[in-house]
Amino acid sequence: MLTELPTRGFSFELLATLGNARAGILHTPRGDIETPVFMPVGTAGTVKAMTADELRAPPLDAKIILGNTYHLYLRPGLEVMGAAGGLHKFAAWDRPILTDSGGFQVFSLAGINEIDDDGVTFRSHIDGSKHRLTPEVSMEIQRVLGSDIAMVFDQCPPGDAPADVQEVALARTTAWAKRSLAAPHATGQAVFGIVQGGTDLERRKRHLGEITALGFDGHALGGLAVGESVEETYRVLDEVAHLLPADRPRYLMGVGTPQDLERGIAAGIDMFDCVMPTRNARNGYLFAAGGRVNIPNAANRLDLGPIDPTCPCSTCRTHSRAYLRHLYQAKEILYARLATLHNLTFYALHVRRLRERILAEGQRA
Amino acid sequence: MLTELPTRGFSFELLATLGNARAGILHTPRGDIETPVFMPVGTAGTVKAMTADELRAPPLDAKIILGNTYHLYLRPGLEVMGAAGGLHKFAAWDRPILTDSGGFQVFSLAGINEIDDDGVTFRSHIDGSKHRLTPEVSMEIQRVLGSDIAMVFDQCPPGDAPADVQEVALARTTAWAKRSLAAPHATGQAVFGIVQGGTDLERRKRHLGEITALGFDGHALGGLAVGESVEETYRVLDEVAHLLPADRPRYLMGVGTPQDLERGIAAGIDMFDCVMPTRNARNGYLFAAGGRVNIPNAANRLDLGPIDPTCPCSTCRTHSRAYLRHLYQAKEILYARLATLHNLTFYALHVRRLRERILAEGQRA
Repeated sequence: MLTELPTRGFSFELLATLGNARAGILHTPRGDIETPVFMPVGTAGTVKAMTADELRAPPLDAKIILGNTYHLYLRPGLEVMGAAGGLHKFAAWDRPILTDSGGFQVFSLAGINEIDDDGVTFRSHIDGSKHRLTPEVSMEIQRVLGSDIAMVFDQCPPGDAPADVQEVALARTTAWAKRSLAAPHATGQAVFGIVQGGTDLERRKRHLGEITALGFDGHALGGLAVGESVEETYRVLDEVAHLLPADRPRYLMGVGTPQDLERGIAAGIDMFDCVMPTRNARNGYLFAAGGRVNIPNAANRLDLGPIDPTCPCSTCRTHSRAYLRHLYQAKEILYARLATLHNLTFYALHVRRLRERILAEGQRA
Repeated sequence: MLTELPTRGFSFELLATLGNARAGILHTPRGDIETPVFMPVGTAGTVKAMTADELRAPPLDAKIILGNTYHLYLRPGLEVMGAAGGLHKFAAWDRPILTDSGGFQVFSLAGINEIDDDGVTFRSHIDGSKHRLTPEVSMEIQRVLGSDIAMVFDQCPPGDAPADVQEVALARTTAWAKRSLAAPHATGQAVFGIVQGGTDLERRKRHLGEITALGFDGHALGGLAVGESVEETYRVLDEVAHLLPADRPRYLMGVGTPQDLERGIAAGIDMFDCVMPTRNARNGYLFAAGGRVNIPNAANRLDLGPIDPTCPCSTCRTHSRAYLRHLYQAKEILYARLATLHNLTFYALHVRRLRERILAEGQRA
């Protein structure tokens, strides 16, 4: 079942369903994205430690990566991004890019911020300089970045904020979603709405109704895995994900562990991103079929086997745990490269295996 | 003209000479090394930021890299290196490796050391632990590392040390050279002697006579570019390099700039190593045909051209100065990778061009 999305050149093809889980293809002008998909995070114009060639090479074969509006706006800034002709050319990445709107970073990374109905004033986490983001400014930055999928600018209140604060944030997020959609976009740039509402199901479903009525190309669940318990995350996912329009891609923002991805896919999510595989890699935590490997552990000192004997990545085909542990201890840059490639491959194959199961065991859509 | 070297499987083929400059091939059991050659430095089991695949890929195509006895002895240590089956297997590098003996590091990096006629007691720069290196211990470490070319353990006095200190160090270095040669080696491991003597030509030539009489597979000049003026370095090179036996490879240790390499080659040197291309890369200094590029400079902010338009490395074929500057400013790991690949390629091509000139304009040997 293929649905043309509102933005020209984008369509979503649903291939099979298994319960609420779905397998499909998001067709974009820059290439097809098989879903479910995990999108590596390239915050500041690079997936940390990786080249574009490595990301594209099988078995990792990343079909889409993330970029970040907040980070790229602060550094290198719009003048450079504009002169370079956008993020694809700047970073030499020719496949699709999704850009986060900066909303989450403004509320989590930036200094003292003032929020009003028009937008947010904040201080850069880099140099303390004062800046202002509004829905229109965020969309303008994303227009210059030229991402394939832009996200609306939203307000993310803390999970433990009182109900009246939550309601104000929710109303603003809806108003900002409308303004984001109305602002100019780059040619061939799809826009996704974001459903907030914390862990309160009534609030979540109410906001879902407001956002999905606006005609976005796809829909995201935001404000999950931001401090609430895993059980609460899963409860919201189970109750809400399948209520998002079935004919458009569904994106769970910033989540999570391999288990979270499995639960998200079971609940009906198509797209994921998270810094976990890349950040954990750099910090010594490696994913493996047999369980997580903490590479600094003394047990790896003389271990001549790979991180994961079932993994086809070049790190596992070439290098031992003993070598990786040595590189980690010696703070060698090569460690971050080899570890990141492995963790991203683990995530890609994990999601691809779940996709194949949906295609094999599910019903044709 | 081909000369069998003392160690089985090694031979040195002199192809052409141009003045004192030479072009040749050092044949080793692990592969041929066209000389003159620049050897990338892989101190702690990795050429910093690089994979073996990248080092082997043309146009860089490194035929030999360095490893360091001092660093690998301290971390990961001999138990790990022995269990791994040596440095080649540990680092997944199948081409030749030359190991420094640790002499230079003990005198430059380590803590309070006591030198006597038998060896050196020092404290680790990593954790302050106490260790002792002697010619026999250094050769034993290099045996376990399994390098293709081992260097003798030498004493490197400061360049400004008084004459009596210099003479004691010189006598020790000769005695240690004999002991290094007499100590057990790995099968198929060549051993190079090191000529010391500072900038005093009489002392240099006297030591050259002592060392070259011992029957090494090749000879190195040590203790140059350690604080003396460039003019003094060049004077010693010009007076001494061509006196090293012509039928064996000549190695100038730890030197230097592209100009130093050119002067060294003109003086008759065949092999070079230096951390300059890799360390400078990480610090923002990039080599280019048009002169050195300081990547953080504001002039590069909007420069969409490559580091060096004449350079065939993948960094220059793919990325702009603006992108590299951004990655440098954002302290992204990718910066170190792209910059190191470029600088090593610059050095490799610089030396290869000089070799081609000797072959084209020189006399057949």
